[in-house]
Amino acid sequence: MSTTPLPSSLRPTLPGTAYTDPATFDAECARILEANWFCAVAAVDLPKAGSFRTVTVGRESVLITRSRTGEVRAFFNVCRHRGARLCTESSGTVGRTFRCPYHAWSYDLDGKLAGAPHLPQMRDIDRTEYGLRTIAVREWLGYVWVCLADDPPSFADTVMASVASRLGDVAAVDRYDVGSLALGKRITYDVAANWKLVVENFMECYHCATIHPELTGVLPEFAKGWAAQYYVGHGAEMGASVEGFTVDGSAGLGRLPDIDDEQDRRYFAVTVAPQVFLNLVPDHVIVHRMFPLSANRTVIECDWLVHPDVVAAGTDISRSVELFDRVNRQDFDACERCQSGMGSRVYRDGGVLVPTEHHIEEFHTWVRTSLGEIVAVPEASEGAA
Amino acid sequence: MSTTPLPSSLRPTLPGTAYTDPATFDAECARILEANWFCAVAAVDLPKAGSFRTVTVGRESVLITRSRTGEVRAFFNVCRHRGARLCTESSGTVGRTFRCPYHAWSYDLDGKLAGAPHLPQMRDIDRTEYGLRTIAVREWLGYVWVCLADDPPSFADTVMASVASRLGDVAAVDRYDVGSLALGKRITYDVAANWKLVVENFMECYHCATIHPELTGVLPEFAKGWAAQYYVGHGAEMGASVEGFTVDGSAGLGRLPDIDDEQDRRYFAVTVAPQVFLNLVPDHVIVHRMFPLSANRTVIECDWLVHPDVVAAGTDISRSVELFDRVNRQDFDACERCQSGMGSRVYRDGGVLVPTEHHIEEFHTWVRTSLGEIVAVPEASEGAA
Amino acid sequence: MSTTPLPSSLRPTLPGTAYTDPATFDAECARILEANWFCAVAAVDLPKAGSFRTVTVGRESVLITRSRTGEVRAFFNVCRHRGARLCTESSGTVGRTFRCPYHAWSYDLDGKLAGAPHLPQMRDIDRTEYGLRTIAVREWLGYVWVCLADDPPSFADTVMASVASRLGDVAAVDRYDVGSLALGKRITYDVAANWKLVVENFMECYHCATIHPELTGVLPEFAKGWAAQYYVGHGAEMGASVEGFTVDGSAGLGRLPDIDDEQDRRYFAVTVAPQVFLNLVPDHVIVHRMFPLSANRTVIECDWLVHPDVVAAGTDISRSVELFDRVNRQDFDACERCQSGMGSRVYRDGGVLVPTEHHIEEFHTWVRTSLGEIVAVPEASEGAA
Repeated sequence: MSTTPLPSSLRPTLPGTAYTDPATFDAECARILEANWFCAVAAVDLPKAGSFRTVTVGRESVLITRSRTGEVRAFFNVCRHRGARLCTESSGTVGRTFRCPYHAWSYDLDGKLAGAPHLPQMRDIDRTEYGLRTIAVREWLGYVWVCLADDPPSFADTVMASVASRLGDVAAVDRYDVGSLALGKRITYDVAANWKLVVENFMECYHCATIHPELTGVLPEFAKGWAAQYYVGHGAEMGASVEGFTVDGSAGLGRLPDIDDEQDRRYFAVTVAPQVFLNLVPDHVIVHRMFPLSANRTVIECDWLVHPDVVAAGTDISRSVELFDRVNRQDFDACERCQSGMGSRVYRDGGVLVPTEHHIEEFHTWVRTSLGEIVAVPEASEGAA
Repeated sequence: MSTTPLPSSLRPTLPGTAYTDPATFDAECARILEANWFCAVAAVDLPKAGSFRTVTVGRESVLITRSRTGEVRAFFNVCRHRGARLCTESSGTVGRTFRCPYHAWSYDLDGKLAGAPHLPQMRDIDRTEYGLRTIAVREWLGYVWVCLADDPPSFADTVMASVASRLGDVAAVDRYDVGSLALGKRITYDVAANWKLVVENFMECYHCATIHPELTGVLPEFAKGWAAQYYVGHGAEMGASVEGFTVDGSAGLGRLPDIDDEQDRRYFAVTVAPQVFLNLVPDHVIVHRMFPLSANRTVIECDWLVHPDVVAAGTDISRSVELFDRVNRQDFDACERCQSGMGSRVYRDGGVLVPTEHHIEEFHTWVRTSLGEIVAVPEASEGAA
Repeated sequence: MSTTPLPSSLRPTLPGTAYTDPATFDAECARILEANWFCAVAAVDLPKAGSFRTVTVGRESVLITRSRTGEVRAFFNVCRHRGARLCTESSGTVGRTFRCPYHAWSYDLDGKLAGAPHLPQMRDIDRTEYGLRTIAVREWLGYVWVCLADDPPSFADTVMASVASRLGDVAAVDRYDVGSLALGKRITYDVAANWKLVVENFMECYHCATIHPELTGVLPEFAKGWAAQYYVGHGAEMGASVEGFTVDGSAGLGRLPDIDDEQDRRYFAVTVAPQVFLNLVPDHVIVHRMFPLSANRTVIECDWLVHPDVVAAGTDISRSVELFDRVNRQDFDACERCQSGMGSRVYRDGGVLVPTEHHIEEFHTWVRTSLGEIVAVPEASEGAA
């Protein structure tokens, strides 16, 4: 951090190396991405027993599947015998077992070792002990969340608490009944930027007037630059002449049945660190899941979830999708532009946060604390928001 | 290695990092690839004086050529003046000298400095002292073996001993008269896997039933999973209805003239660590030379050697070639799948070897010993093969 | 360095790792490329107020522009707010300000913070303190030179002294009036070699007879291998039948008006370490600027500068350009060939310099001293040039 005291309008960011250093990324994998609940796949991606999907969580390939009794299971995607990658496809369906294509060790949908050549002669091999290594799993809001920690933190105290602290209570998100929605559209973005830049970008709206003309057209208060999400329970209101959360403000889809009037005509954004953004609007829900792959690369899967009747009716949702697709591209371009500057000598001590960004410091403190750094007590500052 | 004791059916492998760590690969270059005899090129690739070939041995480019008196010579492929790469082509022919294209220092086929601009005025330069740095060389089985060590180990005690320990005696391989055979076909494979995974794959047949339908069709005993090569002197027998070592079991080429009846209708595989596999069948010989390029990349040149009469007659050898070409592709796919899993946390302590693979532990011990690690005395185990 | 004493004809080079080691390249960035005057762009590339160009100097992106009063300015190309790269284009023109496309912080052409959203409410932000970080700048010979050091060395004692020590005095170069010339042609080369190999190549002519047939055709004395540039004030003379400094010795362009007769029909080469080569011939000037990007990659911009009348008349300059374009390609091929050998064990202690190259040792000493190494007193040698 700069040795020159900052004016009270400004707060420090993380130093530039936090966004470029491979060793820092490794530490983040170990202590953040592989240690916390990670939103991995949509439940609808696993429609039946034997459906599977493989995703990258931190430095690990994770295999997620549905068991014969309908529960979701997650495993390290590595054969216990000689370490072959069990599934190389990103998605698919198997019958009763996952069979390693190298030596034919096979595992049932609960991960137990189901068979292997010569296995009957190796009587001292315990089929559970030599089953796939299991990973903690939880379904919520229509998504499968996994935690690679041996002793996962409380889901309620972390993921659910993040939502509650933003919306006031968890019931507010329940009214969107996200788990019942259908996948209207999915777009995957491959971004040449550190995942923390993407989080910081989502947390503030100081940039909205500059790069998001369509979004500020629909949500005029965003043009003022205040991050609406940091007023507990506040949703940004659509402009008076706006009919829907669409790229041109034209009418959207039908209002979701259970939301209350205070949720109508409003946009709520929720950050669930480290890698999920929820976007709640009256007629659909947008979910971003980030997959940080290296210090300077992050893949983001963004889902547009709509009422099943919308899909059944074949309704055109393209104007709804286009709004946030444009926002995403505008944001990720900005993140890539930042990544490019992180290595400069003049950013060695980081940059500055203006008052409408001061709350990003909470995220930085959370990162530092997660990495085990002693977090200095911030010096007293006057006049900050 | 795992802290949990393994059941006696299982033995440990190397840890996953042994296959991914660049520093380990560097150490393997220094202590294994550049320290042992390395099978570099086929003698037929150097048909006359001035023929040359360049190959990568560990971290070095090696220039191999034939002198005016017919001997094979090997040199570091680096000009003694300013370090330019002398030959950038992988093969070719020169007249009397290799001439550096930068400043025209030229070296004769024995490596001696033959000329350079202004050399007559630099009378204190010894032409041998400033000749190319020589590398130890040996011809055997129709191949040129080089050793980059200053003090090479005994060829007889290492390379020849490996063959003898597998076949019972060296005379067994002599009967194939490999040096007199012609190159029928060469295929080069670029494999995204650590070289040790390729060695381990070649050493065991536990995978044969799963991935090698054509090979087990020709050699039915391979379907049982025992690595035939680890019974001294044993060759796997062709099936009763099999006519030849071809992709469909149809008749192959004529029996090589000097093999004995015990060698007929049998397949013998020999591993010459670190980088050679010999495959002996009645009518041809297949030689794999591996060129490890990094922790996760290995180039493999595979030669199908046949009697010169076969080449002279223009006989179609495609069914003979296709059998092991398929085996190679099946094996290298499996190796690449393993490489992908080596970095996982759950493979940090490695995997396990079943009884038909226990002999791979000898290779691991050899690697560890070569790298200078103290090799722990293995704990007593019961029931292992 | 070799433990065997060298014969007196030879002097040592730098060790091979000096050309391959990323840590050495980092140190060179810090202590050489970012510490000395660096020739960044041609003044003609910045024709008017708001014209800008971005270049890489060491590890930094530098933004160079022209102010409203016509002076050249240079800045670190990083926004002071959150570190975004201000300009991602390599060249262009702005109006009154550079505006960061992320949060719209804008800077005037002198680097001062001109505006930002909410800036009027942040009264404690000093617009100069939060302006762009400035970089020292100097115009000479029609080029903009920058120095990223906090306390730049004397331009006269470094850049100008290099020219004077080669030509005898600075007035010699002044007569070419380089700053008044027009850009006839620019060619950019992307070379897979360490920048020091390119410098060493330019400093000696021992290679000329081997790789530069066109150049030695025009300048016959270069075939003898002596680096003309190391006789103070000496220019290599064109051959008697040569009409001009062209690829085929045919007539070139008109003699530059102010050069003296001793400069006519002669070629003068000047190395301005670390990254500039000046080539002075009677009718044009060739300027190489190197941009070292990593230990094994260097981009080189080469400009052919001619009298403005030549451009105005539309005269064909292709034969003039082709001569040094060929020389460049011949040289850079040689440098890439050297780079390939630098990692070899046999070049660990480096190579040797023959008498016509001994002066390269001065460059090596300068590099070593710049990097803070204790430079050993060279052992006494006899008979060296």
